[in-house]
Amino acid sequence: MARWQPGSRERLQGAALDLFSQQGYDSTTVAEIAARAGVTKRTFFRHFADKRDVLFAGAGELEAVLAGAIVEAPRELAPLDAISAALAATRADSMVPRQYLRQRQTVIGASPELMERELIKFDSLTLAFADALRRREVDAVTASLEAQAGISIFRTAFARWVQSGDDEDMGPIVRDVLTQFRAAVAA
Amino acid sequence: MARWQPGSRERLQGAALDLFSQQGYDSTTVAEIAARAGVTKRTFFRHFADKRDVLFAGAGELEAVLAGAIVEAPRELAPLDAISAALAATRADSMVPRQYLRQRQTVIGASPELMERELIKFDSLTLAFADALRRREVDAVTASLEAQAGISIFRTAFARWVQSGDDEDMGPIVRDVLTQFRAAVAA
Repeated sequence: MARWQPGSRERLQGAALDLFSQQGYDSTTVAEIAARAGVTKRTFFRHFADKRDVLFAGAGELEAVLAGAIVEAPRELAPLDAISAALAATRADSMVPRQYLRQRQTVIGASPELMERELIKFDSLTLAFADALRRREVDAVTASLEAQAGISIFRTAFARWVQSGDDEDMGPIVRDVLTQFRAAVAA
Repeated sequence: MARWQPGSRERLQGAALDLFSQQGYDSTTVAEIAARAGVTKRTFFRHFADKRDVLFAGAGELEAVLAGAIVEAPRELAPLDAISAALAATRADSMVPRQYLRQRQTVIGASPELMERELIKFDSLTLAFADALRRREVDAVTASLEAQAGISIFRTAFARWVQSGDDEDMGPIVRDVLTQFRAAVAA
């Protein structure tokens, strides 16, 4: 009977994360990652630009999905509600197991280079959110402020979701953080 | 009659910015900066760790001033009002001419390396704001959300202030952006 086997891309991601966790990001080479995944270095570079890219490979796709969801959200939603609806609908766990994301956050938190990369990713996501809001005819200044607020909510909710139990969905956490955020910034 | 002469630190900052503007950040060496400022490379390294540091040398001082002002703000102010009061009181132009800051923003915007450094600086400032709010007995989650909101207001207000006329103060711009931000995120 055929069993599901992850492809080489997923095997490389798992191998990289295990090695980064065990021996540190800086000390791990692409050759070691490829060897542990049972593929050649050439296969590694078919999937990823470098070892850092293994941890951020899905970021562009996530950005496109979220921006698209913001543009398509019902017209009657206020901009921040449109962002939150997009975030709440993210089925991150349908793409990547939460245990992987938990381990990934630990690896990123231990490396200044990876934390920099994460900040750049969030900055790019902020610009994508603002652009999506402008396509809902929100003016540029408001769109930028809402996008930044949306990213604050996303980062806070994502951190909480990653650490939560496997049966907890992103949706209620996002809605909870949105409520907290609005109460926190109210006059 | 004695005329005011900027010290070697200020001359190095002016020389670096001129060279970065004229020939690009990547193409400029420490030796060129020192030569234009009329000092030795050794003097350069007494003031700055490297050429990137020239543009971010005041960041630690600004962080300490702002965090101190947040902790000391009147108790009756809501957290985001305490942050905004601290930002509004920043006399950035008393330390650095606005024309310098304008040129600096253009140089940073043209270099991915410098933009990364700026993101790291804002991330550090976010943590400092959250820490200052916790010292006002704000709970950790709320402090983090307020700090992120405060940074969004700071970045937006600072960008507007740098581009504004020389007679415009930071205070009214911060208060204006705070009002816009609250309206933008309200339910």
